[in-house]
Amino acid sequence: MSDAIKAATLEYATRLGDDALVLGHRISEWVSYGPFLEEDIAYANVSLDYVGRARMFYTYAAELAADGRTEDDFAYMRSDRDYHNLLLLEMPRGDFAYSQVRQLFADVYYSLVLPELVKSKDERLAAVAAKAIKETKYHVRRSRDWVHRLGEGTEESHKRTQKAVDQLWGYTHEMFDMDDTEQLLADNGIGVDVSKLRDQWHKDVSAILTEATITVPEDSWAVRGGRTGYHTENLGHMLTELQIVHRSHPGCQW
Amino acid sequence: MSDAIKAATLEYATRLGDDALVLGHRISEWVSYGPFLEEDIAYANVSLDYVGRARMFYTYAAELAADGRTEDDFAYMRSDRDYHNLLLLEMPRGDFAYSQVRQLFADVYYSLVLPELVKSKDERLAAVAAKAIKETKYHVRRSRDWVHRLGEGTEESHKRTQKAVDQLWGYTHEMFDMDDTEQLLADNGIGVDVSKLRDQWHKDVSAILTEATITVPEDSWAVRGGRTGYHTENLGHMLTELQIVHRSHPGCQW
Repeated sequence: MSDAIKAATLEYATRLGDDALVLGHRISEWVSYGPFLEEDIAYANVSLDYVGRARMFYTYAAELAADGRTEDDFAYMRSDRDYHNLLLLEMPRGDFAYSQVRQLFADVYYSLVLPELVKSKDERLAAVAAKAIKETKYHVRRSRDWVHRLGEGTEESHKRTQKAVDQLWGYTHEMFDMDDTEQLLADNGIGVDVSKLRDQWHKDVSAILTEATITVPEDSWAVRGGRTGYHTENLGHMLTELQIVHRSHPGCQW
Repeated sequence: MSDAIKAATLEYATRLGDDALVLGHRISEWVSYGPFLEEDIAYANVSLDYVGRARMFYTYAAELAADGRTEDDFAYMRSDRDYHNLLLLEMPRGDFAYSQVRQLFADVYYSLVLPELVKSKDERLAAVAAKAIKETKYHVRRSRDWVHRLGEGTEESHKRTQKAVDQLWGYTHEMFDMDDTEQLLADNGIGVDVSKLRDQWHKDVSAILTEATITVPEDSWAVRGGRTGYHTENLGHMLTELQIVHRSHPGCQW
């Protein structure tokens, strides 16, 4: 592995880990607040899937970094500027419709990214993707069902779902951005060219929203910055909660 | 100073520092959210008075501890169980009436505690009290004026003020508790016997509330625990925010 490829792969694994941890944490904020017990447990499991995915990506990143850091250092000892997750995933929990719409956007995205990543020439990335694909099929089914249910439910649930879609839409464009790092990896058969997934994502999401009687928004605005560490105010507050125990007891062994 | 007196004084200075820091932080949560600019600045100044008081108590506590810790270690490197502040002061910001009622209860309390503490045989405690007394006269006038204004304001502001008084009343009893530590210091002319201040506090607060057309609650319930480190869930969340910057950059010099 050349130095350039190695550096890019480290950054790429970190980004994917950041995406997974940040979304997993946001989902975990619903634990014990679910609308009914089965849903509560389901959401906890989805959260665990994403946090587990973060562990695998961070472990690989730590191996590539080879500077003594572990998965925990990646999760707990970096500031918001060092996190390179998508902004969509750090948006607050919001109401139940808001979280489920975000989940739909993310789950459909990963249902397209992972089948590409599984073909990666990097065996480690391919192996994580292979494991995650199975979970993601279930995730998409679940979030699709919820958006149907909320969109076609009461007037109030429909209104909230439409509002969530409108509020989050501008954060979805960043998911399909490519920069030099990702382009280098895509050119070398290691990373996914996400720019090519945009049309399919739009088609899949639009079909689900339309079936749920939700209007698909125009692409009239976009917010970007997560991949370069420019975040909304939400991430810092989230990391404060996520990191306080580890930072309060650095190096503590159980 | 005997070892027993020294240990008790350390604990006492820490408690008074914890009270001041926790209340000062809660007040600071209003900064930039005040109902108008003058009030915004006034509240910021009151917050600074309390945080400044915390510094003085913690600095003295650190000197007594003589184990290398500084005021910052007392503020930022102790967990919620190590904090021995009054529960009243850690209660959340709530609405404006809630914060102002808590402020009235606290300010009247210190207007009675400080004139006693200024007579302390411990010169350091007496000096801090002497400085704080001047601020507290202004604080009491301010919170009294606000409770009048809110109690006699609109139907809504009256309702909220009465609700705040009813909700916070049960947390005021702890202010007048004595334990072995404080009794030892009171017996030696160092600490204040707060149990003797209860009647005057009740009289002062009742007069203000009555003038503000607010009903003084019965003493039908009480919650205690702050002085022994048994806190409401609010303190941990507050300390998370208060401590994250320091814990993220331990030992950092500006």
